[in-house]
Amino acid sequence: MRYNTIKALLRANKTVVNAWASIPSSFCAEVIANCGFDAVTVDLQHGMIDYAQMLSMFQAISTTNTIPLGRPSGSNAVEIMRILDAGAYGVICPQVDTADIARSVVAACRYPPLGARSYGPPRGLLYGGADYFAHANDEILIFIMIESKQAVENLDEILDVPGVDGVFIGPNDLSLSYGGGVGCNPQGEVSDIIDMIRTKTAARGLATGIYCADGVMCQMRIHQGFQLVNPGNDAGVLKSAFEVQLSTIQNCVQ
Amino acid sequence: MRYNTIKALLRANKTVVNAWASIPSSFCAEVIANCGFDAVTVDLQHGMIDYAQMLSMFQAISTTNTIPLGRPSGSNAVEIMRILDAGAYGVICPQVDTADIARSVVAACRYPPLGARSYGPPRGLLYGGADYFAHANDEILIFIMIESKQAVENLDEILDVPGVDGVFIGPNDLSLSYGGGVGCNPQGEVSDIIDMIRTKTAARGLATGIYCADGVMCQMRIHQGFQLVNPGNDAGVLKSAFEVQLSTIQNCVQ
Amino acid sequence: MRYNTIKALLRANKTVVNAWASIPSSFCAEVIANCGFDAVTVDLQHGMIDYAQMLSMFQAISTTNTIPLGRPSGSNAVEIMRILDAGAYGVICPQVDTADIARSVVAACRYPPLGARSYGPPRGLLYGGADYFAHANDEILIFIMIESKQAVENLDEILDVPGVDGVFIGPNDLSLSYGGGVGCNPQGEVSDIIDMIRTKTAARGLATGIYCADGVMCQMRIHQGFQLVNPGNDAGVLKSAFEVQLSTIQNCVQ
Amino acid sequence: MRYNTIKALLRANKTVVNAWASIPSSFCAEVIANCGFDAVTVDLQHGMIDYAQMLSMFQAISTTNTIPLGRPSGSNAVEIMRILDAGAYGVICPQVDTADIARSVVAACRYPPLGARSYGPPRGLLYGGADYFAHANDEILIFIMIESKQAVENLDEILDVPGVDGVFIGPNDLSLSYGGGVGCNPQGEVSDIIDMIRTKTAARGLATGIYCADGVMCQMRIHQGFQLVNPGNDAGVLKSAFEVQLSTIQNCVQ
Amino acid sequence: MRYNTIKALLRANKTVVNAWASIPSSFCAEVIANCGFDAVTVDLQHGMIDYAQMLSMFQAISTTNTIPLGRPSGSNAVEIMRILDAGAYGVICPQVDTADIARSVVAACRYPPLGARSYGPPRGLLYGGADYFAHANDEILIFIMIESKQAVENLDEILDVPGVDGVFIGPNDLSLSYGGGVGCNPQGEVSDIIDMIRTKTAARGLATGIYCADGVMCQMRIHQGFQLVNPGNDAGVLKSAFEVQLSTIQNCVQ
Amino acid sequence: MRYNTIKALLRANKTVVNAWASIPSSFCAEVIANCGFDAVTVDLQHGMIDYAQMLSMFQAISTTNTIPLGRPSGSNAVEIMRILDAGAYGVICPQVDTADIARSVVAACRYPPLGARSYGPPRGLLYGGADYFAHANDEILIFIMIESKQAVENLDEILDVPGVDGVFIGPNDLSLSYGGGVGCNPQGEVSDIIDMIRTKTAARGLATGIYCADGVMCQMRIHQGFQLVNPGNDAGVLKSAFEVQLSTIQNCVQ
Repeated sequence: MRYNTIKALLRANKTVVNAWASIPSSFCAEVIANCGFDAVTVDLQHGMIDYAQMLSMFQAISTTNTIPLGRPSGSNAVEIMRILDAGAYGVICPQVDTADIARSVVAACRYPPLGARSYGPPRGLLYGGADYFAHANDEILIFIMIESKQAVENLDEILDVPGVDGVFIGPNDLSLSYGGGVGCNPQGEVSDIIDMIRTKTAARGLATGIYCADGVMCQMRIHQGFQLVNPGNDAGVLKSAFEVQLSTIQNCVQ
Repeated sequence: MRYNTIKALLRANKTVVNAWASIPSSFCAEVIANCGFDAVTVDLQHGMIDYAQMLSMFQAISTTNTIPLGRPSGSNAVEIMRILDAGAYGVICPQVDTADIARSVVAACRYPPLGARSYGPPRGLLYGGADYFAHANDEILIFIMIESKQAVENLDEILDVPGVDGVFIGPNDLSLSYGGGVGCNPQGEVSDIIDMIRTKTAARGLATGIYCADGVMCQMRIHQGFQLVNPGNDAGVLKSAFEVQLSTIQNCVQ
Repeated sequence: MRYNTIKALLRANKTVVNAWASIPSSFCAEVIANCGFDAVTVDLQHGMIDYAQMLSMFQAISTTNTIPLGRPSGSNAVEIMRILDAGAYGVICPQVDTADIARSVVAACRYPPLGARSYGPPRGLLYGGADYFAHANDEILIFIMIESKQAVENLDEILDVPGVDGVFIGPNDLSLSYGGGVGCNPQGEVSDIIDMIRTKTAARGLATGIYCADGVMCQMRIHQGFQLVNPGNDAGVLKSAFEVQLSTIQNCVQ
Repeated sequence: MRYNTIKALLRANKTVVNAWASIPSSFCAEVIANCGFDAVTVDLQHGMIDYAQMLSMFQAISTTNTIPLGRPSGSNAVEIMRILDAGAYGVICPQVDTADIARSVVAACRYPPLGARSYGPPRGLLYGGADYFAHANDEILIFIMIESKQAVENLDEILDVPGVDGVFIGPNDLSLSYGGGVGCNPQGEVSDIIDMIRTKTAARGLATGIYCADGVMCQMRIHQGFQLVNPGNDAGVLKSAFEVQLSTIQNCVQ
Repeated sequence: MRYNTIKALLRANKTVVNAWASIPSSFCAEVIANCGFDAVTVDLQHGMIDYAQMLSMFQAISTTNTIPLGRPSGSNAVEIMRILDAGAYGVICPQVDTADIARSVVAACRYPPLGARSYGPPRGLLYGGADYFAHANDEILIFIMIESKQAVENLDEILDVPGVDGVFIGPNDLSLSYGGGVGCNPQGEVSDIIDMIRTKTAARGLATGIYCADGVMCQMRIHQGFQLVNPGNDAGVLKSAFEVQLSTIQNCVQ
Repeated sequence: MRYNTIKALLRANKTVVNAWASIPSSFCAEVIANCGFDAVTVDLQHGMIDYAQMLSMFQAISTTNTIPLGRPSGSNAVEIMRILDAGAYGVICPQVDTADIARSVVAACRYPPLGARSYGPPRGLLYGGADYFAHANDEILIFIMIESKQAVENLDEILDVPGVDGVFIGPNDLSLSYGGGVGCNPQGEVSDIIDMIRTKTAARGLATGIYCADGVMCQMRIHQGFQLVNPGNDAGVLKSAFEVQLSTIQNCVQ
């Protein structure tokens, strides 16, 4: 089975730079996968992407050495299994507020006896290789998202769930959950909570990640000890870049 | 009929800043159309876009005041008519190497007696309005691309063709045609030819445009007198912007 | 944020005429949105429409002043959040049989502290505007469908759920649930129940709506006091209209 | 090979009622094909339909006894062959202005020695049957559109081209070509020309057809002797029907 | 309503040969449906197929007498209703581990009073006929999949659920669940369990089916008494057949 | 630039085994590309495939070392350029009946000064590499199809056209053109002509290929000296393989 290079990087305490894809286009995904990221995450939750488009995006990413990941729209086990069958080498699962949800997510990602994943992975066998079944339980990466007050209250119990590879923090929803506003870099109490989550997670030997608005914020989070970071998402990066170009031109026009 | 704001700008000798779309996604097109460009050109020639995707991109652009344009894959009259029927407010037609081709392009864009466009514009009537037929010959914008030695040799004759609204220079192909390499800012002989084309076109009272690699090149071309410019295309801008973010992060990682 | 014109109409006790879309086509949706309806509801339950098509249909509707709504396939919170992220200005949620379901629907439509909607609305920000987050809890419209005996039995408790904007009756399923047949205008007991639901809902100051088979039935329901009505759906209207045309022709042929 | 029922009807001087499809949706096409029409024409010229959608629409139509036809975007032989390979049982080819074009159209529709159609019809063999090659030259229907002054001037020569099954008049473009306005029922000179075309065509034993705005116009054309008529197109019929429903409702609201 | 020929075959204790479709293509589905199978099952669980593609595949299958079935991605009632609305004449529902799940599956497939299916079947009415509602509860076929140790432990209770038409065994997942490996023909304990499931199911007068790897395994299962069998799936059959062709050629090349 | 392995094989007089793809599905293409073929040809002429699907199929093929080729629907230069821009590493161009057509095909595949290909290859740069422009004229493979009496009569002149890499024979159309029937292995006169074409082509140092019905015919053609062969196409191979499975089962059922 094809090696999951980012799982190896995380185990070695290295940083993984991830691209976040929300534009439903296999060509766009291929452009992104050729930028040099370690991974691309196809976002089925807040991205404008559905299953058929995700499949073609995974194919496009698979033309490179960049690792394809998926964020399911929720923690539904059936959807997670479908994403993995399509060739994702891991999931970043949103809204894992309880240990029961975490157990269900792990079960969806692991074949028996470790879990209850149903067998029949069409692109797993093509992208991963004919020995996919023998190694999938080792290679597939499971990140769970901690992004609510409830999840924080249940954190220890959630981190006890065997099979979780890492915790990914959703700062926007976490902040909203604590009564704050939106933004990837909340201050005050939520900032402390983010630090606490990272510390506790790392103490278990699990990987840590957090959604970042841009490259500068990625720097900051890496310095704080986070391993999995992403500079915004494709639509935001494109919009910002085009607006910079436009202002360059408009300065000249005026 | 909805007013073609960029045709009015060009007539008033104002600058039109255009976005170049090559990613086949209506969501991506809507993101671009919300950046503040005057127009978005959906590229059916070198973009990875086909008719169905173009249609949905025109719809996405039409949610804003940005004007939808199309670049056909060639100068085929039937394709041009299909693009206009889908609601484009103009075309930038590639490879117009002779006056005959220019006449055919104009004929495809104008209803009789000015041309031979066939009647039945489904999105023309929705996006343009119920009085589309009465005004389409006035509002639809026709740019022809001059991008070969043959076209330059035929330039005067091409510019004599009635109904052409403007000339758009393709610097890459023009340079190749003269034995040079690729690049949007060719030097030497081809640079002089570009200047000559612009001068002759403007002398006829026609609008001038040229493909630009980025905002800085747009500035340069505007200073030279070009009216229709575009800072690269979506895929290129996205790739560059993501690579900048990545190098920001990698500097920190090392 | 763009104003939700139909929410304002309903608050002012005005009638809202809605089109029901079951054909998966952005062009068809744009045709419908240009007919003059106040809203178009994209039906993911009984319509032949999936997420990608819904997205393009919302874009098509957004080229006009008609308000885009979505009917999710069920009451799943994740799906509702995805529909809103794609730019719907409200949902008409089917099968809300209990107060718990109603609470879950409201939570999916409202950001904290009013609910638990996850943040990241790509088309919300494009169609709604950059200040989407500040106003979404006010502008997004929540209709819940009462369409079973169980829901009727729980009606008072359901109506007590804070955040619901209106009740929409599904007469077909309601009739089936009481042992009747299919049809949008059930008689007898179910007719009385429909009246009771409308009365109780209006008494709480909530809006009332009901699925109607055609314009004549809309008239009747408006006279009864309903505010949100729709003349059948697109596929049915098209089929009836074509059959009328055909019978006109066949009369002549014979 | 499956029998082409409408070719048989036309040979027997019977009327064929055709539906005109411009909405790119296989579900919509299936709805239309269940209305009772003799044929459905998928319009690649002024319809918002491309090849992939046409294919799925032909499949949808093929669930019924209604015969699938295609209108190519122009008279290009390659496109015509692709439409037939996808299972169309005939074409209505636009803009056949000369006998040379007519010959090219016939050649694209007939296997050697009658023409030059290239062999390899995937859906021909599925929808038509395993003996498709043996009978296709007999069963495939060829209508050419006469819709310009040039075509009228060349009419006798065009009608002499062997293999043409019928002439279909495009009244909008014909009227424009003679300096008139748009509309399916032009008066005066163009009305006389329509009559002349019909008479000459019928005199050769060929079938005659004309685009009609609605059922009442179909009646009129049938009385004039036309055999192939269509009551408007799907988008127009849907829009009119919804507007009628809306005005019914609005009368009541006021 | 169109007769469900395979339900009749099963009731008469006849064998039904089913094709398993995992390739998301309506053309591919039409090719398969023309091979002579009694049914084609569109696989939304392990197939690379989503809703829009399933719809077009059902349309393609409906051009023949082959019966369209769907395997939902899980046992979610809303998804099952959507599959039936799209014209499936039955479902093979995975992971029915408890009697409660079985009851929920039956309820999703039957209109009241037998179940709780919501009314509004667009393709049911087209493919099935205008009297769909009157007969759907009789014609729609319900297979539930027994494929886990939990399901086996609950087998008697599951088989007691009224409305189930048959049991379909998933040998891969069943084997994994008992600690074995993957493969459609598990030996030892699991083989005995398969036999036990078949015997108990048949004793209730219900139909029995099992996923088979190829035609030879179908033979074996038919001899064991299974009624619903399938020779592998489309992707596997295509891959094997192409590999056989390749080895034929490579033998010659060497 | 990524090396074109099959062009190297052909130059070294080795055999290239090609798969022929007519099913419009990127998943199906990926399955085929994993079978071990040297190349996969996406067929836009007789395949049920359009541009958007071709693009996604090229992406799927590019996940492997198999080389992606395209057969355009005709010899149109614009379409050929679009296929190459999407990442094809060569074309097999149908209906090259004259030297002028051959020259036009070569011009579409080669950048100046060897041809007139327009610059801007989005997937060329991703799949091929950043130095695509420098090497594309060397790596892109040009096969022209000889498949008519006219082409045979012009053979010497066609073979004189500089830049052609090989000749691919279409036996079906060639046979039809000489008054024969359909079939990939015509006998008599056409068989002699096939041999003559192969001999003359090879004498110029050009590669030779021919469409084959299956692996056995590939063997035969390789023994005759052909270098580029294909065992039928995907739809045919799938249908045959499923029919073999079915007859295995039906033997047992009877």
